[in-house]
Amino acid sequence: MFSRETYIHRRQVLKKAVGSGLIIFPGNEEVGMNYRDNIYHFRQDSSFLYYSGIDRPSLFLLIDVDADIEILFGDDLTIEQTVWTGPQESLAISAEKSGITAVQPFSFAEAIIKNALQQKKALHFLPPYRSAITLKLSSWLEINPSLLAANASVVLSKAIVAQRSYKTNEEVAEIEKAVDITAAMHLKAIQTARPGMAEYEVAAQVESTATSLGGHLAFPTILTVNGQYLHNHAGANILQEGQLVLCDSGAENCMHYAGDMTRTFPVSSTFTTQQKEIYNIVLQAEEAAIATLKPGTLFKNSHLTACKEILTGLKSLGLVKGDLDEAVAAGAHTLFFQCGLGHMMGMDVHDMENIGEEYIGYTDTLKKSTEFGLKSLRLGKELEEGFVLTVEPGIYFIPELIDQWQAEKKYSEFINYDKVQAYRNFGGIRIEEDFLITNDAYRLLGKPLAKTAEDIETLRSY
Amino acid sequence: MFSRETYIHRRQVLKKAVGSGLIIFPGNEEVGMNYRDNIYHFRQDSSFLYYSGIDRPSLFLLIDVDADIEILFGDDLTIEQTVWTGPQESLAISAEKSGITAVQPFSFAEAIIKNALQQKKALHFLPPYRSAITLKLSSWLEINPSLLAANASVVLSKAIVAQRSYKTNEEVAEIEKAVDITAAMHLKAIQTARPGMAEYEVAAQVESTATSLGGHLAFPTILTVNGQYLHNHAGANILQEGQLVLCDSGAENCMHYAGDMTRTFPVSSTFTTQQKEIYNIVLQAEEAAIATLKPGTLFKNSHLTACKEILTGLKSLGLVKGDLDEAVAAGAHTLFFQCGLGHMMGMDVHDMENIGEEYIGYTDTLKKSTEFGLKSLRLGKELEEGFVLTVEPGIYFIPELIDQWQAEKKYSEFINYDKVQAYRNFGGIRIEEDFLITNDAYRLLGKPLAKTAEDIETLRSY
Repeated sequence: MFSRETYIHRRQVLKKAVGSGLIIFPGNEEVGMNYRDNIYHFRQDSSFLYYSGIDRPSLFLLIDVDADIEILFGDDLTIEQTVWTGPQESLAISAEKSGITAVQPFSFAEAIIKNALQQKKALHFLPPYRSAITLKLSSWLEINPSLLAANASVVLSKAIVAQRSYKTNEEVAEIEKAVDITAAMHLKAIQTARPGMAEYEVAAQVESTATSLGGHLAFPTILTVNGQYLHNHAGANILQEGQLVLCDSGAENCMHYAGDMTRTFPVSSTFTTQQKEIYNIVLQAEEAAIATLKPGTLFKNSHLTACKEILTGLKSLGLVKGDLDEAVAAGAHTLFFQCGLGHMMGMDVHDMENIGEEYIGYTDTLKKSTEFGLKSLRLGKELEEGFVLTVEPGIYFIPELIDQWQAEKKYSEFINYDKVQAYRNFGGIRIEEDFLITNDAYRLLGKPLAKTAEDIETLRSY
Repeated sequence: MFSRETYIHRRQVLKKAVGSGLIIFPGNEEVGMNYRDNIYHFRQDSSFLYYSGIDRPSLFLLIDVDADIEILFGDDLTIEQTVWTGPQESLAISAEKSGITAVQPFSFAEAIIKNALQQKKALHFLPPYRSAITLKLSSWLEINPSLLAANASVVLSKAIVAQRSYKTNEEVAEIEKAVDITAAMHLKAIQTARPGMAEYEVAAQVESTATSLGGHLAFPTILTVNGQYLHNHAGANILQEGQLVLCDSGAENCMHYAGDMTRTFPVSSTFTTQQKEIYNIVLQAEEAAIATLKPGTLFKNSHLTACKEILTGLKSLGLVKGDLDEAVAAGAHTLFFQCGLGHMMGMDVHDMENIGEEYIGYTDTLKKSTEFGLKSLRLGKELEEGFVLTVEPGIYFIPELIDQWQAEKKYSEFINYDKVQAYRNFGGIRIEEDFLITNDAYRLLGKPLAKTAEDIETLRSY
């Protein structure tokens, strides 16, 4: 946990921003995998953590802005529960550590909410993403489950985004710990993957690196010889000479701050010439995008910078033709780069995504595009000091997409489909790192990890 | 998957047992950890898997018993989804592999359910354990979420238990694969744990053994120097010379059959004399319980056999006194052995626990006890050929429980509390293996793993 003052301060800022009414933060519940008591590892809701620091299930935090009262609802263990779980810090002590002075039994929460409803007080809550919270809020607030998201508080959403978007020094320190664990995971993958191993065998090494360093996975590991599919999770394919391995993985540290990196490396000890050519285009796109990072840059433009670099490189190989500014404007790059350049990162690997990308990545005046490609750009708005984000361009040869668009003659003024078809079994390459926006530019987070094709090959020599 | 005939046969048996009406199996959905798209690893519902073999989210299986119609509701990927996930087998092909001939879009399911409701057809469903399923069933069936469990079908529950309780040879073969992975996990823990390591570092080795062999964890790993707390998960304690490590972990294989074993070993290379004395009592209790395994044995009696062995051993050490049959009948053993001897195991590590222990572990005439200790015995009924179960006695010195009961003078006619206090920092020991009930006795599942204190010490010599 951070200091008590940190949490008190965060809640004070929040109360001031929300202005009046009741703010309700339901903590997350345990989720059964195949029956109620066989649970997934517990993950607390990030906003609950941000404002309370308390990392255990079945809690409910209520902040009465008008009365300036904060109550944590939850139950201590009975002795019979202690037999199963071991003793646990009392809730009163946990609450005290974050400056919350009132603790009440969980069963008291509903009556307080119902009472506030009767008194027509404003009740501020975030859109739920867990069905258990949907059920609880629906019952307590007497709102149909399908209408909860529409009734979520815009004031609260904006207030939280306005706080959590700006990482303090102590938060950046935690993120760097997570990024360092993340780099160790990638180093392990690059050093241990061998022809003949299954994807899941390498993924097991990546994941145990995270857990043996006291972390957890920040998101499901992508470790695949089919890197052209963007979120293709580790499977049973056997690594074969000549293939590429794309590993997109990351840890969250014990404070639940995330790291998120991608490296792509050859199953053989060296890249082929064709692989190295595409690799260097992705690297050049990443470096060009990184160079744009500073307060005031529209991240949408950083994205488009990377798109143009990708087309420039591919034009030099003959896959692309025509005017590249026109090609980017038309969206021709989306045959190769179908997604976004990056996203905010913090306590969530896609930070605050549960609150809504319209607040995190865009503004009232800059709305997200609905076009293929740009609609997957999670962050478009102007960068500010304190933002933490990923930069992760890639080139992906997706046979299904190539075939469909070639048949449709889509972007045929910009794409040499015959040349592209020669790459249909190429796979995909992505390079990803994490950055802090500083007062005048950016800072790479975590210890640097091999990134050039040559440095990757050095690690792959065996 | 098993053969198409296997799934067709299973559904035929089920339809016959249920007799009439509609059987509805909602498959499991993805669950977001900290936002909707950042998902836990997917775990299909076991009954859905048992009757369909289809291991992917967002499906719904409907069996109209009267019309003898089976429909799988679900949606194939769009090309845009393929960009993210890679191509997936079409649902029609998946369904065909388990002999289901009708596939319809997911959105069609609700109307068919509503129509059946209007026609007052019997709708058979299992009690939900995932909130997403609760929400869906509540909406479709127009039943308040809190009343769904009470409206679950007893006929369906009993019919499923009557099938899934008896493991076929092909199921036993899958379970043995899972148990072999499980044994490898334990061997890894015993061979790699060293003084100075954190619990989570050893757990990381255990878990990566499961995943590198193509499995997943069947349940959250218990790996702790505080084995006295029964389900105390891997934490950050540092292993110290003189302590015991209790590891209760298991894999499920790619077919989602589970293994579940426990070993307890010393952090030092050898047990202390005191540790070995208690270890041998637990081992003797396990062997005595195993010797009772055969068709016709009431498993509750196997449990009580182990309880008496534990008291017999502890009496020889002076911790227990008096008549031991009376002590077991009174429940005095529950100071040391607070839980049950074992449970059914199959596609769920506590097999079918979501359906209800009153059906899986007990009968209309043999009800589960409500007493401390026996109320945690998940399996009490008569054993039959084809059952697969765990045997897992233990001795746990729980300081909180010892202090409370000593203060209450509870069981003081049987317990020498002064002697027991000398063990208050001892920890806990459990030994667990998995068994198939055969036509006349039992068979240990999986390759044998070191179990005697001497064999464990041989593995610990470093």
